[in-house]
Amino acid sequence: MYTEIFSQMKKQLGQLDKWLGTAAEHAKAKPFDPAVLAAARLAPDQFPLTRQVQICCDTVKLAASFLSGKPAESQPDTEQTLEELQARVRSIIQYLDGFTAQDFDGAAGRVVSQPRWKGEWMTGADYFVQHAIPNFYFHLTTAYDILRHNGVSVGKRDFLGAQTKRPPVT
Amino acid sequence: MYTEIFSQMKKQLGQLDKWLGTAAEHAKAKPFDPAVLAAARLAPDQFPLTRQVQICCDTVKLAASFLSGKPAESQPDTEQTLEELQARVRSIIQYLDGFTAQDFDGAAGRVVSQPRWKGEWMTGADYFVQHAIPNFYFHLTTAYDILRHNGVSVGKRDFLGAQTKRPPVT
Repeated sequence: MYTEIFSQMKKQLGQLDKWLGTAAEHAKAKPFDPAVLAAARLAPDQFPLTRQVQICCDTVKLAASFLSGKPAESQPDTEQTLEELQARVRSIIQYLDGFTAQDFDGAAGRVVSQPRWKGEWMTGADYFVQHAIPNFYFHLTTAYDILRHNGVSVGKRDFLGAQTKRPPVT
Repeated sequence: MYTEIFSQMKKQLGQLDKWLGTAAEHAKAKPFDPAVLAAARLAPDQFPLTRQVQICCDTVKLAASFLSGKPAESQPDTEQTLEELQARVRSIIQYLDGFTAQDFDGAAGRVVSQPRWKGEWMTGADYFVQHAIPNFYFHLTTAYDILRHNGVSVGKRDFLGAQTKRPPVT
């Protein structure tokens, strides 16, 4: 199911790209400086939209890298505008386009660790289910909620995107 | 991976139960009526906390039912207090406790449909990846974000809960 879930995450990043575009249009129509939205947050001690998008992007990028063994370039987190955030999102979609189902053969059994874990590790399966999926959706949804809270016209259908419904059997 | 992801969703519902408990303590300490939090929302045209929790619960309950063929009881959505929401969450944890890995054999190939789809259908795999997982995390995270926005002391660790880290290999 790794390939299907990464494919879904790629679709969700495409939706995030659209919400950011809708946010820019909203700022232009009011009008106000769209950078205000990029710096918006739901609580004074929670990350702003910029950081939510950056972490969302990093979560799926690192998961694809850890679970395939393919390298991922570090990105500097310098985005400050909605357009720059869209470029960051599109860079991850492009990165995911470089993977095939074969890249995730054996993903479940991989050893995943990070320097700050001091030698502790997780299986690929545990990392994917317990960290990558929840963390990706946490930051994706919080980015959506920040825009929603600030009056940007996005709804549940924009969140989920198109679904593969099949025609009635006649 | 169905069993692992349902197990993770059950864990996340346990975390949601804790956030609701922290929210009740926060209301008592300030003090204010905790029902204010149950009715709180991030935008005037977005669902309040009560509905976010109800839909989060229904999403995982219906997914487990659709993907196993086991029945699920309809619940009336009458919760108005944090304690009632906690009871709803716990009822779903209890429902999920009744499943075994065998119940999800063949889940990917099941036909999933709902009356409002007018005969259209999804495969179990598509339904799980494209609807159940994103919708569950959407409402779970929005419930968290509503509490976070209203000053309840919850953080990312409370969102993710415990992760299965393994000891260093010496």
